[in-house]
Amino acid sequence: MKPIKAAIIGAGNVAWHLSQALENAGYPICEVYSRTAAHAVELAERMYGATVNPDLDFSESEARLFFLTIKDDALEQVASQISFPPDSIVVHTSGSKSLEELRQSVFFDTVNTGVFYPLQTFSKSKKVDFSTVPICIEACNEEVEHILVEIGQSISQIVYVVNSDERRVLHVAAVFACNFTNHLFALSKDILEKENLEFELLKPLIWETVEKALQADHPANVQTGPAKRNDQKIIDQQINYLENNPEAQTIYQLLTESILARKLAE
Amino acid sequence: MKPIKAAIIGAGNVAWHLSQALENAGYPICEVYSRTAAHAVELAERMYGATVNPDLDFSESEARLFFLTIKDDALEQVASQISFPPDSIVVHTSGSKSLEELRQSVFFDTVNTGVFYPLQTFSKSKKVDFSTVPICIEACNEEVEHILVEIGQSISQIVYVVNSDERRVLHVAAVFACNFTNHLFALSKDILEKENLEFELLKPLIWETVEKALQADHPANVQTGPAKRNDQKIIDQQINYLENNPEAQTIYQLLTESILARKLAE
Repeated sequence: MKPIKAAIIGAGNVAWHLSQALENAGYPICEVYSRTAAHAVELAERMYGATVNPDLDFSESEARLFFLTIKDDALEQVASQISFPPDSIVVHTSGSKSLEELRQSVFFDTVNTGVFYPLQTFSKSKKVDFSTVPICIEACNEEVEHILVEIGQSISQIVYVVNSDERRVLHVAAVFACNFTNHLFALSKDILEKENLEFELLKPLIWETVEKALQADHPANVQTGPAKRNDQKIIDQQINYLENNPEAQTIYQLLTESILARKLAE
Repeated sequence: MKPIKAAIIGAGNVAWHLSQALENAGYPICEVYSRTAAHAVELAERMYGATVNPDLDFSESEARLFFLTIKDDALEQVASQISFPPDSIVVHTSGSKSLEELRQSVFFDTVNTGVFYPLQTFSKSKKVDFSTVPICIEACNEEVEHILVEIGQSISQIVYVVNSDERRVLHVAAVFACNFTNHLFALSKDILEKENLEFELLKPLIWETVEKALQADHPANVQTGPAKRNDQKIIDQQINYLENNPEAQTIYQLLTESILARKLAE
Protein backbone atom coordinates (compact mmCIF):
# COMPACT_ATOMS: atom_id res chain seq x y z
CA MET A 1 0.00 0.00 0.00
CA LYS A 2 1.28 3.45 -0.90
CA PRO A 3 1.73 5.72 2.13
CA ILE A 4 -0.85 8.46 2.61
CA LYS A 5 0.79 11.80 1.85
CA ALA A 6 0.04 14.88 3.89
CA ALA A 7 -0.01 18.63 3.47
CA ILE A 8 0.50 21.12 6.27
CA ILE A 9 -1.38 24.42 6.19
CA GLY A 10 0.29 26.83 8.62
CA ALA A 11 3.93 26.77 9.70
CA GLY A 12 3.83 27.65 13.39
CA ASN A 13 4.93 25.70 16.47
CA VAL A 14 2.46 22.83 16.03
CA ALA A 15 3.30 22.42 12.33
CA TRP A 16 7.00 22.45 13.15
CA HIS A 17 6.84 19.44 15.48
CA LEU A 18 3.85 17.58 14.02
CA SER A 19 5.21 17.49 10.45
CA GLN A 20 8.43 15.85 11.59
CA ALA A 21 6.57 13.30 13.72
CA LEU A 22 4.34 12.43 10.74
CA GLU A 23 7.27 11.93 8.40
CA ASN A 24 9.10 9.78 10.93
CA ALA A 25 5.97 7.63 11.22
CA GLY A 26 5.76 7.10 7.45
CA TYR A 27 3.36 9.85 6.38
CA PRO A 28 5.44 12.00 4.01
CA ILE A 29 4.70 15.71 3.91
CA CYS A 30 4.48 16.64 0.25
CA GLU A 31 3.23 20.23 0.48
CA VAL A 32 3.40 23.13 2.86
CA TYR A 33 1.47 26.40 2.87
CA SER A 34 1.89 29.44 5.08
CA ARG A 35 0.58 32.97 4.74
CA THR A 36 4.18 33.98 5.45
CA ALA A 37 6.03 32.37 2.53
CA ALA A 38 9.40 32.39 4.32
CA HIS A 39 7.96 30.22 7.12
CA ALA A 40 6.63 27.74 4.56
CA VAL A 41 10.06 27.55 2.91
CA GLU A 42 11.77 27.04 6.27
CA LEU A 43 9.39 24.24 7.21
CA ALA A 44 9.52 22.57 3.76
CA GLU A 45 13.33 22.48 3.97
CA ARG A 46 13.13 20.34 7.11
CA MET A 47 11.07 17.72 5.25
CA TYR A 48 12.35 15.02 2.88
CA GLY A 49 10.51 16.09 -0.25
CA ALA A 50 8.04 18.85 0.47
CA THR A 51 7.31 21.72 -1.87
CA VAL A 52 5.81 25.07 -0.97
CA ASN A 53 2.34 25.72 -2.31
CA PRO A 54 2.08 29.48 -2.97
CA ASP A 55 -1.72 29.56 -2.59
CA LEU A 56 -4.53 27.43 -1.21
CA ASP A 57 -5.27 25.52 -4.40
CA PHE A 58 -4.54 21.88 -3.59
CA SER A 59 -6.94 20.44 -6.19
CA GLU A 60 -4.05 18.75 -8.04
CA SER A 61 -2.15 17.78 -4.88
CA GLU A 62 -0.90 14.27 -4.13
CA ALA A 63 -1.80 14.88 -0.48
CA ARG A 64 -4.90 13.22 0.88
CA LEU A 65 -4.45 14.41 4.46
CA PHE A 66 -4.60 18.12 5.26
CA PHE A 67 -3.53 19.43 8.66
CA LEU A 68 -4.80 22.92 9.44
CA THR A 69 -2.37 24.14 12.11
CA ILE A 70 -3.52 27.73 12.12
CA LYS A 71 -4.81 30.15 14.74
CA ASP A 72 -8.41 29.72 15.89
CA ASP A 73 -9.40 33.18 14.60
CA ALA A 74 -8.26 32.39 11.06
CA LEU A 75 -9.33 28.75 10.89
CA GLU A 76 -12.72 29.09 9.23
CA GLN A 77 -11.61 31.73 6.78
CA VAL A 78 -8.59 29.72 5.60
CA ALA A 79 -10.53 26.44 5.47
CA SER A 80 -13.16 28.03 3.22
CA GLN A 81 -10.50 29.11 0.70
CA ILE A 82 -8.79 25.76 0.21
CA SER A 83 -9.44 23.70 -2.92
CA PHE A 84 -9.12 20.07 -1.95
CA PRO A 85 -8.52 17.05 -4.15
CA PRO A 86 -11.32 14.43 -4.09
CA ASP A 87 -11.58 12.01 -1.17
CA SER A 88 -9.24 13.89 1.10
CA ILE A 89 -9.39 14.30 4.86
CA VAL A 90 -8.95 17.72 6.44
CA VAL A 91 -8.33 18.04 10.17
CA HIS A 92 -7.70 20.98 12.44
CA THR A 93 -5.35 20.77 15.44
CA SER A 94 -7.19 23.17 17.75
CA GLY A 95 -8.36 22.51 21.29
CA SER A 96 -11.19 25.02 21.17
CA LYS A 97 -12.73 24.75 17.70
CA SER A 98 -15.47 22.17 17.15
CA LEU A 99 -15.57 19.68 14.32
CA GLU A 100 -18.81 21.30 13.16
CA GLU A 101 -17.14 24.70 12.72
CA LEU A 102 -14.60 23.08 10.40
CA ARG A 103 -17.25 21.09 8.53
CA GLN A 104 -19.30 24.19 7.80
CA SER A 105 -16.38 26.14 6.43
CA VAL A 106 -15.17 23.49 3.98
CA PHE A 107 -16.88 23.99 0.61
CA PHE A 108 -16.36 20.50 -0.80
CA ASP A 109 -18.86 17.73 -0.33
CA THR A 110 -16.30 15.00 -0.93
CA VAL A 111 -13.95 16.19 1.81
CA ASN A 112 -13.92 14.34 5.11
CA THR A 113 -13.34 16.32 8.27
CA GLY A 114 -11.76 15.57 11.61
CA VAL A 115 -9.84 16.90 14.57
CA PHE A 116 -6.29 15.89 15.40
CA TYR A 117 -5.50 17.79 18.58
CA PRO A 118 -2.10 17.23 20.21
CA LEU A 119 -2.63 18.18 23.88
CA GLN A 120 0.74 19.79 24.49
CA THR A 121 2.41 23.20 24.45
CA PHE A 122 4.96 23.62 21.67
CA SER A 123 7.87 26.00 21.13
CA LYS A 124 10.05 25.77 18.03
CA SER A 125 13.19 25.93 20.14
CA LYS A 126 12.36 22.96 22.37
CA LYS A 127 12.29 19.39 21.14
CA VAL A 128 9.11 17.49 22.00
CA ASP A 129 8.89 13.74 22.43
CA PHE A 130 5.70 13.21 20.45
CA SER A 131 5.34 9.64 21.69
CA THR A 132 4.18 11.01 25.08
CA VAL A 133 1.84 13.68 23.69
CA PRO A 134 -1.85 12.74 24.04
CA ILE A 135 -3.62 13.01 20.67
CA CYS A 136 -7.34 13.75 20.80
CA ILE A 137 -9.18 12.49 17.73
CA GLU A 138 -12.61 13.31 16.39
CA ALA A 139 -13.96 12.50 12.94
CA CYS A 140 -17.00 12.97 10.69
CA ASN A 141 -17.52 9.21 10.43
CA GLU A 142 -16.14 5.90 11.71
CA GLU A 143 -13.95 5.20 8.71
CA VAL A 144 -12.16 8.54 9.04
CA GLU A 145 -11.95 8.07 12.81
CA HIS A 146 -10.22 4.74 12.23
CA ILE A 147 -7.68 6.32 9.86
CA LEU A 148 -6.97 9.22 12.22
CA VAL A 149 -6.59 6.93 15.24
CA GLU A 150 -4.11 4.84 13.26
CA ILE A 151 -2.09 7.92 12.34
CA GLY A 152 -2.27 9.11 15.94
CA GLN A 153 -1.02 5.77 17.23
CA SER A 154 1.86 5.80 14.80
CA ILE A 155 3.24 8.97 16.41
CA SER A 156 2.04 8.71 20.03
CA GLN A 157 1.36 6.08 22.67
CA ILE A 158 -1.62 8.07 23.96
CA VAL A 159 -4.55 8.43 21.58
CA TYR A 160 -8.08 9.24 22.73
CA VAL A 161 -11.29 9.68 20.80
CA VAL A 162 -12.74 12.89 22.28
CA ASN A 163 -15.75 14.77 20.96
CA SER A 164 -15.96 18.55 20.65
CA ASP A 165 -17.77 19.05 23.96
CA GLU A 166 -15.25 16.93 25.81
CA ARG A 167 -12.38 18.77 24.16
CA ARG A 168 -13.82 22.04 25.41
CA VAL A 169 -13.89 20.65 28.98
CA LEU A 170 -10.30 19.47 28.59
CA HIS A 171 -9.38 22.99 27.59
CA VAL A 172 -10.99 24.54 30.69
CA ALA A 173 -9.21 21.99 32.89
CA ALA A 174 -5.91 22.72 31.14
CA VAL A 175 -6.32 26.44 31.83
CA PHE A 176 -6.50 25.64 35.57
CA ALA A 177 -3.72 23.06 35.64
CA CYS A 178 -1.31 24.84 33.29
CA ASN A 179 -2.01 28.50 32.54
CA PHE A 180 -3.08 29.40 36.08
CA THR A 181 -0.33 27.30 37.62
CA ASN A 182 2.23 29.15 35.54
CA HIS A 183 0.79 32.45 36.78
CA LEU A 184 1.11 31.31 40.41
CA PHE A 185 4.77 30.56 39.74
CA ALA A 186 5.10 34.09 38.36
CA LEU A 187 3.48 35.63 41.47
CA SER A 188 5.70 33.48 43.68
CA LYS A 189 8.82 34.67 41.89
CA ASP A 190 7.65 38.30 42.23
CA ILE A 191 7.24 37.86 45.99
CA LEU A 192 10.78 36.50 46.32
CA GLU A 193 12.35 39.08 44.02
CA LYS A 194 11.03 41.93 46.15
CA GLU A 195 13.21 40.60 48.99
CA ASN A 196 16.13 39.61 46.74
CA LEU A 197 15.49 35.94 47.35
CA GLU A 198 16.11 33.46 44.57
CA PHE A 199 13.27 31.51 42.95
CA GLU A 200 15.90 28.76 42.57
CA LEU A 201 15.36 27.91 46.25
CA LEU A 202 11.77 26.83 45.60
CA LYS A 203 12.39 24.68 42.54
CA PRO A 204 13.07 21.34 44.28
CA LEU A 205 9.90 21.86 46.33
CA ILE A 206 7.88 22.67 43.21
CA TRP A 207 9.09 19.53 41.42
CA GLU A 208 8.28 17.35 44.40
CA THR A 209 4.83 18.97 44.77
CA VAL A 210 3.97 18.31 41.13
CA GLU A 211 5.31 14.77 41.26
CA LYS A 212 3.22 14.01 44.35
CA ALA A 213 0.08 15.61 42.91
CA LEU A 214 0.31 13.65 39.66
CA GLN A 215 1.05 10.35 41.39
CA ALA A 216 -1.81 10.66 43.86
CA ASP A 217 -5.29 9.23 43.26
CA HIS A 218 -6.47 12.82 43.55
CA PRO A 219 -4.28 15.92 44.07
CA ALA A 220 -6.57 16.90 46.96
CA ASN A 221 -5.28 13.85 48.86
CA VAL A 222 -1.77 15.30 49.02
CA GLN A 223 -2.76 18.91 49.70
CA THR A 224 -0.51 20.51 52.33
CA GLY A 225 0.04 24.00 53.73
CA PRO A 226 -1.52 26.43 56.19
CA ALA A 227 -4.98 26.38 54.57
CA LYS A 228 -5.15 22.59 54.62
CA ARG A 229 -4.06 22.58 58.28
CA ASN A 230 -6.47 25.43 58.95
CA ASP A 231 -3.55 27.20 60.65
CA GLN A 232 -5.27 30.55 61.09
CA LYS A 233 -2.24 32.16 62.75
CA ILE A 234 -0.01 31.61 59.73
CA ILE A 235 -2.81 32.46 57.29
CA ASP A 236 -3.36 35.83 58.99
CA GLN A 237 0.37 36.50 59.10
CA GLN A 238 0.72 35.78 55.39
CA ILE A 239 -2.32 37.85 54.39
CA ASN A 240 -0.83 40.66 56.45
CA TYR A 241 2.49 40.30 54.74
CA LEU A 242 0.80 40.74 51.34
CA GLU A 243 -0.77 44.07 52.37
CA ASN A 244 1.20 46.00 49.76
CA ASN A 245 0.43 43.49 47.03
CA PRO A 246 -3.40 43.58 46.88
CA GLU A 247 -3.61 41.42 43.76
CA ALA A 248 -1.62 38.58 45.32
CA GLN A 249 -3.48 39.14 48.60
CA THR A 250 -6.90 38.65 46.98
CA ILE A 251 -5.71 35.50 45.21
CA TYR A 252 -4.25 34.24 48.50
CA GLN A 253 -7.56 34.75 50.29
CA LEU A 254 -9.69 33.16 47.59
CA LEU A 255 -7.53 30.06 47.14
CA THR A 256 -7.17 29.65 50.91
CA GLU A 257 -10.96 29.78 51.30
CA SER A 258 -11.33 27.25 48.51
CA ILE A 259 -8.87 24.81 50.12
CA LEU A 260 -10.60 25.27 53.49
CA ALA A 261 -14.03 24.68 51.93
CA ARG A 262 -12.85 21.40 50.46
CA LYS A 263 -11.34 20.38 53.79
CA LEU A 264 -14.61 21.08 55.59
CA ALA A 265 -16.59 19.15 52.96
CA GLU A 266 -14.45 16.05 53.40
CA MET B 1 38.38 14.81 65.55
CA LYS B 2 35.48 12.88 67.02
CA PRO B 3 32.27 13.24 65.01
CA ILE B 4 29.57 15.45 66.48
CA LYS B 5 26.71 13.24 67.67
CA ALA B 6 23.12 14.28 67.20
CA ALA B 7 19.77 13.68 68.87
CA ILE B 8 16.43 13.89 67.10
CA ILE B 9 13.39 15.19 68.98
CA GLY B 10 10.27 14.18 67.11
CA ALA B 11 9.89 11.21 64.79
CA GLY B 12 7.73 12.52 61.93
CA ASN B 13 8.42 12.83 58.21
CA VAL B 14 11.27 15.32 58.52
CA ALA B 15 12.99 13.29 61.27
CA TRP B 16 12.64 10.14 59.19
CA HIS B 17 14.59 11.49 56.21
CA LEU B 18 16.89 13.97 57.95
CA SER B 19 18.25 11.47 60.49
CA GLN B 20 19.34 9.10 57.75
CA ALA B 21 20.96 11.89 55.73
CA LEU B 22 22.87 13.01 58.85
CA GLU B 23 24.16 9.53 59.62
CA ASN B 24 25.22 9.02 56.01
CA ALA B 25 27.16 12.28 56.22
CA GLY B 26 29.01 11.22 59.37
CA TYR B 27 26.86 12.71 62.11
CA PRO B 28 25.68 9.68 64.12
CA ILE B 29 22.26 9.87 65.71
CA CYS B 30 22.76 8.65 69.28
CA GLU B 31 19.33 9.43 70.77
CA VAL B 32 15.75 9.74 69.63
CA TYR B 33 12.73 11.13 71.47
CA SER B 34 9.11 11.14 70.43
CA ARG B 35 5.94 11.80 72.41
CA THR B 36 4.70 8.58 70.80
CA ALA B 37 7.21 6.03 72.08
CA ALA B 38 6.51 3.54 69.27
CA HIS B 39 7.53 6.13 66.69
CA ALA B 40 10.79 6.77 68.52
CA VAL B 41 11.53 3.03 68.60
CA GLU B 42 10.78 2.70 64.89
CA LEU B 43 13.08 5.59 64.03
CA ALA B 44 15.88 4.45 66.37
CA GLU B 45 15.85 1.04 64.73
CA ARG B 46 16.71 2.58 61.37
CA MET B 47 19.84 4.17 62.88
CA TYR B 48 23.20 2.49 63.50
CA GLY B 49 23.36 2.95 67.25
CA ALA B 50 20.55 5.15 68.49
CA THR B 51 18.73 4.64 71.77
CA VAL B 52 15.31 5.91 72.69
CA ASN B 53 15.23 8.57 75.37
CA PRO B 54 11.95 8.11 77.29
CA ASP B 55 11.80 11.75 78.43
CA LEU B 56 13.31 15.11 77.56
CA ASP B 57 16.25 14.91 79.96
CA PHE B 58 19.34 14.98 77.74
CA SER B 59 21.64 16.48 80.40
CA GLU B 60 23.84 13.35 80.35
CA SER B 61 23.60 12.82 76.57
CA GLU B 62 26.59 12.39 74.28
CA ALA B 63 24.71 14.42 71.67
CA ARG B 64 25.82 18.00 71.09
CA LEU B 65 23.40 18.69 68.24
CA PHE B 66 19.65 18.64 68.86
CA PHE B 67 17.21 18.69 65.98
CA LEU B 68 13.68 19.69 66.97
CA THR B 69 11.56 18.25 64.17
CA ILE B 70 8.20 18.87 65.78
CA LYS B 71 5.03 20.69 64.84
CA ASP B 72 5.06 24.48 65.06
CA ASP B 73 2.32 24.52 67.72
CA ALA B 74 4.31 22.31 70.09
CA LEU B 75 7.76 23.69 69.40
CA GLU B 76 8.11 26.20 72.21
CA GLN B 77 6.52 23.98 74.82
CA VAL B 78 8.77 21.01 74.04
CA ALA B 79 11.89 23.18 73.75
CA SER B 80 11.26 24.60 77.20
CA GLN B 81 11.12 21.12 78.75
CA ILE B 82 14.39 19.78 77.39
CA SER B 83 17.44 19.52 79.63
CA PHE B 84 20.49 20.05 77.42
CA PRO B 85 24.11 19.09 78.07
CA PRO B 86 26.54 22.03 78.19
CA ASP B 87 27.74 23.63 74.92
CA SER B 88 25.16 22.03 72.77
CA ILE B 89 23.42 23.43 69.72
CA VAL B 90 19.66 23.15 69.36
CA VAL B 91 17.99 23.85 66.01
CA HIS B 92 14.45 23.71 64.79
CA THR B 93 13.52 22.63 61.28
CA SER B 94 10.47 24.85 60.79
CA GLY B 95 9.82 27.26 57.94
CA SER B 96 7.56 29.50 59.98
CA LYS B 97 9.08 29.76 63.44
CA SER B 98 11.70 32.44 64.08
CA LEU B 99 15.05 31.86 65.70
CA GLU B 100 14.00 34.23 68.48
CA GLU B 101 10.98 32.10 69.38
CA LEU B 102 13.29 29.14 69.89
CA ARG B 103 15.88 31.18 71.80
CA GLN B 104 13.28 32.43 74.27
CA SER B 105 11.92 28.98 75.01
CA VAL B 106 15.25 27.32 75.78
CA PHE B 107 16.02 27.65 79.47
CA PHE B 108 19.77 27.11 79.27
CA ASP B 109 22.22 29.96 78.88
CA THR B 110 24.94 27.71 77.52
CA VAL B 111 22.81 26.35 74.70
CA ASN B 112 23.32 27.72 71.21
CA THR B 113 20.34 28.06 68.93
CA GLY B 114 19.81 27.86 65.23
CA VAL B 115 17.48 26.96 62.41
CA PHE B 116 18.08 24.10 59.99
CA TYR B 117 15.16 24.24 57.59
CA PRO B 118 15.04 21.74 54.72
CA LEU B 119 12.84 23.41 52.09
CA GLN B 120 11.08 20.29 50.86
CA THR B 121 7.91 18.30 51.43
CA PHE B 122 8.49 14.89 53.01
CA SER B 123 6.43 11.70 53.19
CA LYS B 124 7.74 8.62 54.97
CA SER B 125 6.79 6.42 52.04
CA LYS B 126 8.75 8.36 49.41
CA LYS B 127 12.54 8.45 49.30
CA VAL B 128 14.03 11.93 49.10
CA ASP B 129 17.38 12.77 47.52
CA PHE B 130 18.61 15.11 50.24
CA SER B 131 21.51 16.32 48.08
CA THR B 132 19.03 18.41 46.07
CA VAL B 133 17.06 19.75 49.05
CA PRO B 134 17.84 23.42 49.80
CA ILE B 135 18.83 23.84 53.45
CA CYS B 136 18.13 27.25 55.00
CA ILE B 137 20.42 28.02 57.91
CA GLU B 138 20.19 30.64 60.63
CA ALA B 139 22.22 30.78 63.84
CA CYS B 140 22.63 32.73 67.07
CA ASN B 141 26.26 33.57 66.21
CA GLU B 142 28.84 33.17 63.48
CA GLU B 143 30.56 30.18 65.00
CA VAL B 144 27.31 28.23 65.19
CA GLU B 145 26.37 29.40 61.71
CA HIS B 146 29.66 28.02 60.42
CA ILE B 147 29.02 24.63 62.05
CA LEU B 148 25.46 24.43 60.73
CA VAL B 149 26.49 25.45 57.20
CA GLU B 150 29.14 22.71 57.28
CA ILE B 151 26.57 20.12 58.36
CA GLY B 152 24.17 21.41 55.73
CA GLN B 153 26.80 21.14 53.00
CA SER B 154 27.61 17.59 54.05
CA ILE B 155 24.07 16.48 53.21
CA SER B 156 23.01 18.91 50.44
CA GLN B 157 24.51 20.81 47.52
CA ILE B 158 22.23 23.77 48.19
CA VAL B 159 22.77 25.61 51.47
CA TYR B 160 21.65 29.18 52.06
CA VAL B 161 21.96 31.42 55.11
CA VAL B 162 18.47 32.88 55.45
CA ASN B 163 17.23 35.00 58.34
CA SER B 164 13.82 34.61 59.98
CA ASP B 165 12.19 37.40 57.96
CA GLU B 166 13.45 35.98 54.69
CA ARG B 167 12.30 32.50 55.68
CA ARG B 168 8.81 33.88 56.24
CA VAL B 169 8.80 35.38 52.73
CA LEU B 170 10.00 32.05 51.33
CA HIS B 171 7.08 30.41 53.04
CA VAL B 172 4.54 32.80 51.50
CA ALA B 173 6.08 32.24 48.06
CA ALA B 174 6.00 28.47 48.60
CA VAL B 175 2.28 28.62 49.43
CA PHE B 176 1.66 30.19 46.01
CA ALA B 177 4.02 27.96 44.02
CA CYS B 178 3.18 24.69 45.77
CA ASN B 179 0.05 24.61 47.95
CA PHE B 180 -2.06 26.74 45.61
CA THR B 181 -0.71 24.97 42.53
CA ASN B 182 -1.71 21.63 44.02
CA HIS B 183 -5.19 22.99 44.63
CA LEU B 184 -5.49 24.09 40.98
CA PHE B 185 -4.58 20.54 39.97
CA ALA B 186 -7.37 19.31 42.26
CA LEU B 187 -9.91 21.71 40.71
CA SER B 188 -8.75 20.67 37.25
CA LYS B 189 -9.25 17.01 38.05
CA ASP B 190 -12.73 17.75 39.46
CA ILE B 191 -13.70 19.50 36.20
CA LEU B 192 -12.59 16.49 34.16
CA GLU B 193 -14.18 13.91 36.46
CA LYS B 194 -17.60 15.50 36.09
CA GLU B 195 -17.43 14.61 32.39
CA ASN B 196 -15.72 11.25 32.92
CA LEU B 197 -12.52 12.51 31.34
CA GLU B 198 -9.19 11.30 32.65
CA PHE B 199 -6.74 13.64 34.42
CA GLU B 200 -4.09 11.41 32.82
CA LEU B 201 -4.66 13.26 29.55
CA LEU B 202 -3.36 16.53 31.04
CA LYS B 203 -0.25 15.17 32.71
CA PRO B 204 2.20 15.54 29.80
CA LEU B 205 0.99 19.13 29.37
CA ILE B 206 1.44 19.83 33.09
CA TRP B 207 5.00 18.49 33.08
CA GLU B 208 5.93 20.55 30.05
CA THR B 209 4.34 23.67 31.57
CA VAL B 210 6.31 23.29 34.80
CA GLU B 211 9.54 22.54 32.96
CA LYS B 212 9.14 25.65 30.80
CA ALA B 213 8.21 27.86 33.76
CA LEU B 214 11.22 26.78 35.80
CA GLN B 215 13.65 27.09 32.89
CA ALA B 216 12.49 30.58 31.92
CA ASP B 217 14.08 33.77 33.24
CA HIS B 218 10.65 34.52 34.67
CA PRO B 219 7.55 32.28 34.49
CA ALA B 220 5.60 35.29 33.18
CA ASN B 221 7.73 35.13 30.00
CA VAL B 222 6.28 31.75 29.07
CA GLN B 223 2.67 32.45 30.09
CA THR B 224 0.20 31.04 27.55
CA GLY B 225 -3.56 30.59 27.36
CA PRO B 226 -6.72 32.58 26.63
CA ALA B 227 -6.04 35.24 29.29
CA LYS B 228 -2.53 35.89 27.98
CA ARG B 229 -3.88 36.17 24.41
CA ASN B 230 -6.77 38.28 25.72
CA ASP B 231 -9.06 35.91 23.79
CA GLN B 232 -12.33 37.23 25.22
CA LYS B 233 -14.47 34.79 23.22
CA ILE B 234 -12.87 31.74 24.82
CA ILE B 235 -12.71 33.41 28.26
CA ASP B 236 -16.47 34.08 28.17
CA GLN B 237 -17.19 30.56 26.93
CA GLN B 238 -15.15 29.06 29.74
CA ILE B 239 -16.65 31.30 32.45
CA ASN B 240 -20.05 30.26 31.10
CA TYR B 241 -19.13 26.61 31.24
CA LEU B 242 -18.25 26.96 34.96
CA GLU B 243 -21.71 28.37 35.79
CA ASN B 244 -22.57 25.39 37.98
CA ASN B 245 -19.23 25.49 39.76
CA PRO B 246 -19.22 28.98 41.31
CA GLU B 247 -16.05 28.37 43.33
CA ALA B 248 -14.01 27.41 40.28
CA GLN B 249 -15.72 30.20 38.32
CA THR B 250 -14.63 32.89 40.80
CA ILE B 251 -11.07 31.56 40.81
CA TYR B 252 -11.11 31.49 37.00
CA GLN B 253 -12.21 35.12 36.83
CA LEU B 254 -9.72 36.37 39.40
CA LEU B 255 -6.69 34.59 37.92
CA THR B 256 -7.69 35.62 34.39
CA GLU B 257 -7.91 39.26 35.49
CA SER B 258 -4.54 38.95 37.17
CA ILE B 259 -2.88 37.52 34.03
CA LEU B 260 -4.55 40.25 31.92
CA ALA B 261 -3.39 42.97 34.31
CA ARG B 262 0.20 41.76 34.01
CA LYS B 263 -0.10 41.65 30.22
CA LEU B 264 -1.37 45.23 30.12
CA ALA B 265 1.41 46.39 32.45
CA GLU B 266 4.11 44.92 30.17
